[in-house]
Amino acid sequence: MDERIHEHARILTDWSADIGAGDNVVMIVENGAHELAVAVAEQVGQRNGNLLTKYTSGEIDRAYLRAHEGEFDSDPAHALSLYENADVVLSLNAGHNTNAWTDIPHDTKQAYDTATQAVREARLDTDWVKTIHPTRALAQQAGMAYETYQDFVYDAIIRDWEGLATEMDRLKRRLDAGSEVAIQTAAGTDVTMSIEDRLAVNSAATVRYDSHNLPSGEVFTAPTDTDGTVVFDVPLTYYGERLERATLTFEDGRVVDYAGDNEDVLAEILTTDDGAKRLGELGIGMNRGIDRFTNNILFDEKMGDTVHMALGRAYEACLPDDQTGNQSAVHVDMIADMSTDATIEIDGEIIQRNGTFRWEEEFDAA
Amino acid sequence: MDERIHEHARILTDWSADIGAGDNVVMIVENGAHELAVAVAEQVGQRNGNLLTKYTSGEIDRAYLRAHEGEFDSDPAHALSLYENADVVLSLNAGHNTNAWTDIPHDTKQAYDTATQAVREARLDTDWVKTIHPTRALAQQAGMAYETYQDFVYDAIIRDWEGLATEMDRLKRRLDAGSEVAIQTAAGTDVTMSIEDRLAVNSAATVRYDSHNLPSGEVFTAPTDTDGTVVFDVPLTYYGERLERATLTFEDGRVVDYAGDNEDVLAEILTTDDGAKRLGELGIGMNRGIDRFTNNILFDEKMGDTVHMALGRAYEACLPDDQTGNQSAVHVDMIADMSTDATIEIDGEIIQRNGTFRWEEEFDAA
Repeated sequence: MDERIHEHARILTDWSADIGAGDNVVMIVENGAHELAVAVAEQVGQRNGNLLTKYTSGEIDRAYLRAHEGEFDSDPAHALSLYENADVVLSLNAGHNTNAWTDIPHDTKQAYDTATQAVREARLDTDWVKTIHPTRALAQQAGMAYETYQDFVYDAIIRDWEGLATEMDRLKRRLDAGSEVAIQTAAGTDVTMSIEDRLAVNSAATVRYDSHNLPSGEVFTAPTDTDGTVVFDVPLTYYGERLERATLTFEDGRVVDYAGDNEDVLAEILTTDDGAKRLGELGIGMNRGIDRFTNNILFDEKMGDTVHMALGRAYEACLPDDQTGNQSAVHVDMIADMSTDATIEIDGEIIQRNGTFRWEEEFDAA
Repeated sequence: MDERIHEHARILTDWSADIGAGDNVVMIVENGAHELAVAVAEQVGQRNGNLLTKYTSGEIDRAYLRAHEGEFDSDPAHALSLYENADVVLSLNAGHNTNAWTDIPHDTKQAYDTATQAVREARLDTDWVKTIHPTRALAQQAGMAYETYQDFVYDAIIRDWEGLATEMDRLKRRLDAGSEVAIQTAAGTDVTMSIEDRLAVNSAATVRYDSHNLPSGEVFTAPTDTDGTVVFDVPLTYYGERLERATLTFEDGRVVDYAGDNEDVLAEILTTDDGAKRLGELGIGMNRGIDRFTNNILFDEKMGDTVHMALGRAYEACLPDDQTGNQSAVHVDMIADMSTDATIEIDGEIIQRNGTFRWEEEFDAA
């Protein structure tokens, strides 16, 4: 086995998930992640965790969801109790065909997501971490040769997370102290949002910082009262559907207009529930180890010189105890390029221009 | 996809597991059973069951168990609650390397099995069905070419189960009415056991008959007070270890002597707990569709012209409400050939000679 798989498993179970003796661990293995699963099982064993292994596959989901007739039962007890009694959930994403979901009707997906919201919330209530195992299908989606893609993935995952965490803390402190964020780009984004009383998360790929993706490398918060227009000029794949040039116009926090190359997909997302029309997240990518878009949100949203915003559910970690965030069955991230003719302001001060932060040497203060 | 895979999935979910709307279904997919899992997911969807998919792999178990240090936690709550809230558990066995378990220390396996006994009991308390998806590794284990092995497996699975159930009912009624079974073979078996007040199960591959294997085709009961010697002259693989010519001598129901080609494996089984020294099952194979030994207990024990006995746990289905059967963390089936110079008697009457039953035309009454 590639030694990097073992190193990946060590980072996942130690730095990221912080697994200790007696932890009830659910490992969710996507079809294609078998090798990583073996390495992770070894690490969970060494830490004396209690391992239960789930399986996930777009093909199984597709077969099940397409065949299902009528209403989905709400939060089946076997799935709900599994996650309610789990301490840690490790999702090993992989995939043999990234388009396996393409022909599931959107209303079926939505109905299933809505019916199983409490199951999902129970899962998100654990110390969950999502990571990725490089497969040929993902290399193909990324437009890369398999071995090059493996290098890309491990370069993003196997790094000095403690050092990056320190860097990102600078931005977190600015956001925590701020009240309003304004973002402008050459592509047409011109938007403001409130971050008053919200907490930014230093997403350093460890549950100790409420950061749940490996790799990570972003700072994110839960905005409110969004006003203006956002042009998401980085394409993304949502359940097998390609979304390009999605443009959303907000008034008083809600989407009032939308456009894009695949408008019916946007419309389906926006009509899931009321919360799907509001932003649940603003994230600022700070992982310059990720050097290109690969059509995979787990990497793309972490890339330096980008911001992303998610329609739907807000993360609890961004909310002080007395506040509730945006509620929704969905959380759909979309990305905007900030590398040229773009600024991020906090309370009127430009904090990033063309991807460079104010505290960096190359920052252009004019 | 091979149409036989769809037919297998239909038999499994309909005749075998009898899945209905609202049933909480756990599908356990062994590495290698992906295609069958997709077909089964479709069937569970059509029946409006609630699907949760587990994964199992000898490699993952090996990595976890070998790395684990110290004591295993008793019955972790995530695993226990999953099965306590499940109505149906479908195990899709496959396997990429049937020897993956070979180098796990037996005491580790035993300790794990003992610590997770309530989890296993909760699983066995559901309408569980175990079946098999043909893989190249299983074909290799069976000594057959892959396509020939596929034919073998589907010939055993895709058949007229209702017709076979009627045939097997004849033997069940004889066993239910009987008090003592005596078995003799040319290989040296000479044993008696009580079946007084026990119920025989017509194992017709459906939970409606308390029959949990697909394929099936055996009638079994839970004997007590075994006395004498049994020579298991059909080899079997137990956690990757080959057991040949296992010979057990019983007195007053307990094993008092044992011998065989791999005695340390036998010794480890027998010392698991007190119940491991007693028989939990006597089964009589009646599936003449299975036409050869393939070194896989799921098929071998169902073959016509054989009997099998299991050390360890008795199945509840064989016990009247007021009785408890043999308790153990293990259930290890071993097989004896009955095709030549062999008899089964019930209360002194020969019910089978050389594999032929009393009610069959070819039966030799002398």
